[in-house]
Amino acid sequence: MAPLITAFARSPDRGRGLARDMPVRWALEEVGQPYEVELISFEEMKQPPHRARQPFGQIPTYREGELALFESGAIVLYIAQGRAGLLPDDPDGRARAVMWMFAALSTIEPPIMDRSMALILERQEVWHEQRLRLLEDRISTRLADLSARLGDAEWLDGAFSAGDLMMIQVLRRLAGSDLLAAERSLLAYVARGEARPAFQRAFAAQLAVFKESGGD
Amino acid sequence: MAPLITAFARSPDRGRGLARDMPVRWALEEVGQPYEVELISFEEMKQPPHRARQPFGQIPTYREGELALFESGAIVLYIAQGRAGLLPDDPDGRARAVMWMFAALSTIEPPIMDRSMALILERQEVWHEQRLRLLEDRISTRLADLSARLGDAEWLDGAFSAGDLMMIQVLRRLAGSDLLAAERSLLAYVARGEARPAFQRAFAAQLAVFKESGGD
Repeated sequence: MAPLITAFARSPDRGRGLARDMPVRWALEEVGQPYEVELISFEEMKQPPHRARQPFGQIPTYREGELALFESGAIVLYIAQGRAGLLPDDPDGRARAVMWMFAALSTIEPPIMDRSMALILERQEVWHEQRLRLLEDRISTRLADLSARLGDAEWLDGAFSAGDLMMIQVLRRLAGSDLLAAERSLLAYVARGEARPAFQRAFAAQLAVFKESGGD
Repeated sequence: MAPLITAFARSPDRGRGLARDMPVRWALEEVGQPYEVELISFEEMKQPPHRARQPFGQIPTYREGELALFESGAIVLYIAQGRAGLLPDDPDGRARAVMWMFAALSTIEPPIMDRSMALILERQEVWHEQRLRLLEDRISTRLADLSARLGDAEWLDGAFSAGDLMMIQVLRRLAGSDLLAAERSLLAYVARGEARPAFQRAFAAQLAVFKESGGD
């Protein structure tokens, strides 16, 4: 039976592929695993039936046989561990790919997510500009460090891995910003990720959901 | 040869065990793995030799044979995967323990860390109180959801796991706050974690470093 994931019935990102079902879809496409999707409304997300599978009332969730998971990072790692295509064979290389997943989610993403939230929730505050500058400085520092490590390499550590998948997905939230444009190697890195056929299929699938929901 | 980790020569938390070497030390103690520690000053952290092993100029790092890792979450997971004591034997249970590690680091920790940074860096700002309230609301929501999921259980999913270790370590940053005190089941959960002999040994080891550095 195909794994079942949950996703927004109508994503607040308007089909830009920034919601957290996107990395899960991408991972499933990379390993060639067909999947099914259950769409959830905002109202349903906060109700007990969905909270039984996602205690924080969020998407995505993942169901495969008896296993029920949430947290996109954990789901991507589970998909990567059980199928070929997203982790190297050697144990040390696998550990380093997992390290880049954690780096994406716990070192790179927090200030990027803070900036996204500030741009949505704090635009009217008198201190918005000041706080935005502070956040953008934090992000710039991280991006410069990441860019220095990536150097001229195609991916973070050898072949494309689940670590690159999570990192590129996190960086995509900065698409169109000066922050990402300032680091040309990262801009090219994100473009390489987005050019992968598996990314394209995943992106198209989530966009189709948004369009069918009546989005424009 | 024992694994080698890096830690602050003089931790900014003044020995409260909130620096990111703490979960790594705790994990090593849980699995009964002796380890060695290299202490790093703030100046050294930002220099090329340390950045070669930690591109963001942070601690901890982990070295075992040929393998070099950073990111505390990735290090704890690596330790847990290779030794008995921090992950259940059945594959589904292992996936859920890993899920709780990701939940700790990417769902629970970000607003908690934002609050810690706001308390340090933004106390003088006119908008400090307003922003703090906003952050504390976000944290309260997460804690209530987590508390509801934990219920009367001792640990998040069966036996103590790497998921509990990371979650408790993240919650410890709220020690003494009204936020944690408001959720009595979480307060007791953190206390159960801190009562574990492995936690006690790890805590004592990092405190000894701080005291030897001339801290008080």
